[in-house]
Amino acid sequence: MSVGLNFPETLIPIKGIRLSAISANIYAKKRNDLILIELAEGSGASAVFTKNLFCAAPVIIAKKNLIKSEPRYCLINAGNANAGTGEQGILDAIDTCRFLADLTHCQEEQVIPFSTGVIGQDLPVEKIKDALPELIQNLSEDYWLDAAKAIMTTDTIPKAVSSQIDLNGTTVSITGMVKGAGMIKPDMATMLAFIGTDANISKSLLDKILSKAVNKSFNRITIDGDTSTNDACIIFSTGKAGNHLIDNSNSDDYIDFENAVIKLCCDLAQAIVRDGEGATKFISIEISAGKNEKECLSVGYKIAESPLVKTAFTASDANWGRIIAAIGNSGIHDLDINKIDVYLDDVCIVENGRRSETYTEEKGIRVMSQDEINLSVNLHRGAHNEKLWTTDLSHEYITINAEYRS
Amino acid sequence: MSVGLNFPETLIPIKGIRLSAISANIYAKKRNDLILIELAEGSGASAVFTKNLFCAAPVIIAKKNLIKSEPRYCLINAGNANAGTGEQGILDAIDTCRFLADLTHCQEEQVIPFSTGVIGQDLPVEKIKDALPELIQNLSEDYWLDAAKAIMTTDTIPKAVSSQIDLNGTTVSITGMVKGAGMIKPDMATMLAFIGTDANISKSLLDKILSKAVNKSFNRITIDGDTSTNDACIIFSTGKAGNHLIDNSNSDDYIDFENAVIKLCCDLAQAIVRDGEGATKFISIEISAGKNEKECLSVGYKIAESPLVKTAFTASDANWGRIIAAIGNSGIHDLDINKIDVYLDDVCIVENGRRSETYTEEKGIRVMSQDEINLSVNLHRGAHNEKLWTTDLSHEYITINAEYRS
Repeated sequence: MSVGLNFPETLIPIKGIRLSAISANIYAKKRNDLILIELAEGSGASAVFTKNLFCAAPVIIAKKNLIKSEPRYCLINAGNANAGTGEQGILDAIDTCRFLADLTHCQEEQVIPFSTGVIGQDLPVEKIKDALPELIQNLSEDYWLDAAKAIMTTDTIPKAVSSQIDLNGTTVSITGMVKGAGMIKPDMATMLAFIGTDANISKSLLDKILSKAVNKSFNRITIDGDTSTNDACIIFSTGKAGNHLIDNSNSDDYIDFENAVIKLCCDLAQAIVRDGEGATKFISIEISAGKNEKECLSVGYKIAESPLVKTAFTASDANWGRIIAAIGNSGIHDLDINKIDVYLDDVCIVENGRRSETYTEEKGIRVMSQDEINLSVNLHRGAHNEKLWTTDLSHEYITINAEYRS
Repeated sequence: MSVGLNFPETLIPIKGIRLSAISANIYAKKRNDLILIELAEGSGASAVFTKNLFCAAPVIIAKKNLIKSEPRYCLINAGNANAGTGEQGILDAIDTCRFLADLTHCQEEQVIPFSTGVIGQDLPVEKIKDALPELIQNLSEDYWLDAAKAIMTTDTIPKAVSSQIDLNGTTVSITGMVKGAGMIKPDMATMLAFIGTDANISKSLLDKILSKAVNKSFNRITIDGDTSTNDACIIFSTGKAGNHLIDNSNSDDYIDFENAVIKLCCDLAQAIVRDGEGATKFISIEISAGKNEKECLSVGYKIAESPLVKTAFTASDANWGRIIAAIGNSGIHDLDINKIDVYLDDVCIVENGRRSETYTEEKGIRVMSQDEINLSVNLHRGAHNEKLWTTDLSHEYITINAEYRS
């Protein structure tokens, strides 16, 4: 189940980007599990990858290829992470890229591989190769939703969003899709995000925007505090909207486009949390009046990742004792706990470090019984604010993760 | 349920320490929930407390009183943590200490208060006062087990251990009891540990031994990564064994006694893990050949606190991908993953950062289906080793913590 998440509405095709999805029989039970994204010649790309030291073979190859040349294809499979597969995993990733390059008459380095699924099993290279001719044949600008479905693993619903903005009379479109539901925490989650735009924008500014957008979105979510070996977020710009090139970060066009990408990334990131493994609640955590980003995030993640806080949310129990215990445990040595206020939506539960005199169990229960809850903590010691999103921890999470490989 | 934990065998009374337990009706359902420990005059004490900034009122008072004078009584209640109770909580803790001091004709500062249970509710002072006369009357050297039962909260079994050593022909006894099953992580857990000994030892060496023993035992366990507001470990020495005063840390007596206290603390700490909320497995994690304590513990706790690793243990699934993902995510920036070996008991699952060629699923399943599992990671980069203990993450944990207050 997911919290407040609807099936994606009409997704806007992006001029210069075609997609295709097919079953390569990677999953034992037949479903689409191989995806191809084709980019028009001259498209730009920016990408951010997992910081996990045990990063997967496709991540190593993708990083290398993106440095070498302009990408023309993304080859993505679900059902197998090609991680923990050593030298063979690297060879397998290269092998599939080369095979696709031969079929499409591009350079091997212009193919960017992505994998998601179980760690430690060899990539089924022959199955992927067998499926490639048909995959190429099916490419269409209209298949964003099919691709969003095919990249799912434990996701319960495809997650994709489109938006359009007007830049000086020219309509620019952005469409993004994401997968990920567990092994989710900052520094990228077990997630793959693919965003396409027809905007005409310089490579350096696209890099800058993606970095900022990822930091405000995918790096502000946590489900279980685990970072995956395969995380990646990539954005492509085909330039086919025909807008005047965005090459000045002080221009209105730049600011409008950056805001649109940040909003789209936040929508996608929140969709991951809403579809978090076993999620029954969507929880926004806002830490205000901290001294800096680091301490706001320390407090925020300590709350967001406390199994005791998470299970209290599952039970709709306004167990604020667990919340203050998490705050007191966030490693800020000079935090004055007598200044701290905690709110659940508009209900003050802790004031000056103590249970608020206006607080009643009834008020707490009213907020906690909602599907979506805002938890805000005011540290009263600085001017920095941060916001992040998480889920509760339910029986369903255990069921999913104690049975995933079986 | 607990893993490999038996009901405590005969506990050895400690000369100079009397105990008593009674129902003060703190729990709605009648059970013993108030405990008194009386120490003979001249007894020494050393204590270690939670580092959570939101520490409970009794922790604040206990620390203060231990500095001021030699303790004569520990007054302990279950069912209410007296935490998050502000100024009123402090006054309540002092009030109960003063009342007991009047009844027993000692100084108020000679009473050390401890509380464990739900956070944020006022201490039921009158109920405690009403129960004190009978509690005092019942004091006996034989009631360690009764006390160990009465301090339980979500514990499923009382946890207590005794040992005896011979120091130059004199028998010295040590008996300890502990409570704690959730909100357990280093820097002390939601745990209270009370250890008594009739050893004759200087205060400074008792401090030294407790500090070392806690670091090797209670600070090496994690169940859910949450640190409580009320943690405390206290050791009393009555000196009544009649051994020659231990006042030299190079003496054989010192070393023998220190080793006995460390072993007893490890037994108690492991008992907490074995009785961890929802535990179905007892997992020892050994990190070897690291550069220092800090990095060994980073890797160890990252594995121990990963919900994905923990749920794999629940499922008896040798999902080594989740283990290497946790290692790769432990924040050691210059870790060479190509040198890492991982073993489950004697089965090598990862060798030089890759799935071992000798590994088979059958071998993995054989080890994972055990109740007790040793997971060892060799970092091959230094000479430091660390060991810690944890549990899996099961449905039962969710059930316990999503229902605790209701």
